[in-house]
Amino acid sequence: MHRRVINFIKKLDHFILMLSLIKWFFLSSIVGCVMGILSALFLKSLKLATDLRELNPWLLFLLPFAGAFVSFLYSRYGKNSAKGNNLIIEQAYYGDREIPLRMSVLVFLGTFLTHLFGGSAGREGTAVQMGGSVSEFIGRLFKLDKHDMKIILMCGISSGFGSVFGTPLAGTIFAVEVIAIGYMHYEALIPSFMSAFIGDYVATLVGATHSHYHIYSVPAVTPINVIKVIVAAAIFGIMSIIFSEGVHISKSLFNRITKNAVLKSFIGGCMVILLTYIFDTREYLGLGLPMIKAAFDGHVPKYSFILKTLFTSVTLGAGFQGGEVTPIFFVGSTLGNILSNILLLPASFLAALGLISVFCGATNTPISSFILGIEMFGSHGVVFMFIACIVSYLFSGHYGIYTSQRVYKSKS
Amino acid sequence: MHRRVINFIKKLDHFILMLSLIKWFFLSSIVGCVMGILSALFLKSLKLATDLRELNPWLLFLLPFAGAFVSFLYSRYGKNSAKGNNLIIEQAYYGDREIPLRMSVLVFLGTFLTHLFGGSAGREGTAVQMGGSVSEFIGRLFKLDKHDMKIILMCGISSGFGSVFGTPLAGTIFAVEVIAIGYMHYEALIPSFMSAFIGDYVATLVGATHSHYHIYSVPAVTPINVIKVIVAAAIFGIMSIIFSEGVHISKSLFNRITKNAVLKSFIGGCMVILLTYIFDTREYLGLGLPMIKAAFDGHVPKYSFILKTLFTSVTLGAGFQGGEVTPIFFVGSTLGNILSNILLLPASFLAALGLISVFCGATNTPISSFILGIEMFGSHGVVFMFIACIVSYLFSGHYGIYTSQRVYKSKS
Repeated sequence: MHRRVINFIKKLDHFILMLSLIKWFFLSSIVGCVMGILSALFLKSLKLATDLRELNPWLLFLLPFAGAFVSFLYSRYGKNSAKGNNLIIEQAYYGDREIPLRMSVLVFLGTFLTHLFGGSAGREGTAVQMGGSVSEFIGRLFKLDKHDMKIILMCGISSGFGSVFGTPLAGTIFAVEVIAIGYMHYEALIPSFMSAFIGDYVATLVGATHSHYHIYSVPAVTPINVIKVIVAAAIFGIMSIIFSEGVHISKSLFNRITKNAVLKSFIGGCMVILLTYIFDTREYLGLGLPMIKAAFDGHVPKYSFILKTLFTSVTLGAGFQGGEVTPIFFVGSTLGNILSNILLLPASFLAALGLISVFCGATNTPISSFILGIEMFGSHGVVFMFIACIVSYLFSGHYGIYTSQRVYKSKS
Repeated sequence: MHRRVINFIKKLDHFILMLSLIKWFFLSSIVGCVMGILSALFLKSLKLATDLRELNPWLLFLLPFAGAFVSFLYSRYGKNSAKGNNLIIEQAYYGDREIPLRMSVLVFLGTFLTHLFGGSAGREGTAVQMGGSVSEFIGRLFKLDKHDMKIILMCGISSGFGSVFGTPLAGTIFAVEVIAIGYMHYEALIPSFMSAFIGDYVATLVGATHSHYHIYSVPAVTPINVIKVIVAAAIFGIMSIIFSEGVHISKSLFNRITKNAVLKSFIGGCMVILLTYIFDTREYLGLGLPMIKAAFDGHVPKYSFILKTLFTSVTLGAGFQGGEVTPIFFVGSTLGNILSNILLLPASFLAALGLISVFCGATNTPISSFILGIEMFGSHGVVFMFIACIVSYLFSGHYGIYTSQRVYKSKS
């Protein structure tokens, strides 16, 4: 009798699971469709901003004003939008915050202006924030409960990340892995994937394109090569700390100078102009995609990873909008390229490992970084990618770019 | 001041993390080396058993006696070894069980005899149990505390799985994912990988070889193909329930016939002989690797997946030793092959999806199954593999082959 009751409950349980699938198929698809279109628009606008800036170098001189303007909008109309990615992570963790829909408009516009006028920043922050605020809005529309609100938020994150980078699987795992260090939200795995997959599909349909990088040669799995990769990954892990702390320290330095957000961004914009003329290069403005390509295909300046960290720290520390991930890809791949000369490993191979493992160290998402590697570079050298991710994960300790990320389980 | 203390603690924390790495490098390497050698020996002995059985068909008639003999050994000398994989999972979850070292000897011998005399079973159970009991022994040797004992146990599981299948990454994730449904033990990720990697490396060095299967063609990611794959994966998920419940029901039926383990195995052995002559085929005895190969390269009998489930349910239900995973690979790949004619998708493609997704449904390890797919088949068709794994994961509900597996988080 007892066994029969258990079996009945198990079957009921199974039935509920199937019903919940239908619900989430519906909700995830909406989030995915909206985010797919938004991401495609966003990517096209970034392309436009970059092209315009390269055609009109004088735009850089307006950067302080653009920054001041965006910071003014944030402080006037943004509510708590200025908390950025951390707000999204907190909401997915605690579920008692409020994400205003206007966040998506502000961050879209803000990032566009950052890139148009030459700030050094990325895209993932914008995608995640757009995804977060749009999905929160959709969740409120359907009056979801607290538990489901957290899940739909992860759908927003996954579809934003997945469609902006063209990597739906990494987007999926990123969303369920990034909320807390050492924890994966399995219950959101399927909704999160549906959103990411549909988001990426729709974005591609609408005309979004992504950069492609190639590993030209993978060394054999020998003890010496494994040791070399471990050494490289440890350096990548430490680099991820330097990058994350660079942004954090820059933020608190700007805070010491002034509490006024508008002034802060203005000063930051001036400093970016200054840096551009001190180092006499425009290669560190904007996304820096050509340099990432060069890290795979040829040579890069020796100190490129340091300069990119500096430019990005100033830009983001001063309150400009944009993400950290593309700069992280830049720093990781260029550092990998440079290390390849010392460790005598193929440049494109170490550039790829650098890209995923600095990302891993900075976001504390080892499985997602590993899958990002597979989606971007294929499965050749898969063991090395795994080693690079977990070593960097370990070496980065509990540091990272998201200060709201909680430590669920210590790393070892 | 407060901030400085936090920073100091963070740095200390980081230092401890690094020290713990050295400790685990040492412990994981020992587990990995021992398991690598054991796995290689085990694989070679299985090859020998299979060859001998194929050369001497009359050996099948001794199956009842072999089963009775092994069950006698277990009941006389086994302590709680008969609980098998479930004991390992319970110990990794609760940490208050005891795994006797003799388990490894018994399960090795028992599985060898199962395959020598023609029982239908697999290898992973044996590998996991050897890994579990050996690592528990090593842990006791170094007087590890309860927390570390759980981690070293996962090292045992990962190195056993990784070295027996030649898939160190899937082994790593399997160990940290299998203990509870919907939970990943991140804190064991790095030790678990080190053991699996070294285990696989040593096993290969000592001469272990693995079967290779190929996907010959991957369809394009179109809506219609995605729907087809979802349908197939749902069927694979349901098939995984049928397989798991088949083994469980067979176990309870045998229990109803007699409580005497020796007699039970004897009767089970007779039934396998009977089944062999009723269906007039020996293709379902042992591991069945040739049929798995055929599922990728050609055609398989229409009811092969049902017959394999039947043969395996009887064998394992009667208390024979051996794992479930190779039969699961058999069932999944042959079912995939058969579905390919109905769904009009390439046979090798659906065979691969069937292999990983029936495994996923039966073990409730979606990330590990996905990575297994990448390690076995490469990254071509990676999105389809992910879809197959999570759909099957969902459709299998909270059913599975490991009855001791706890549900940490419901699947949706």
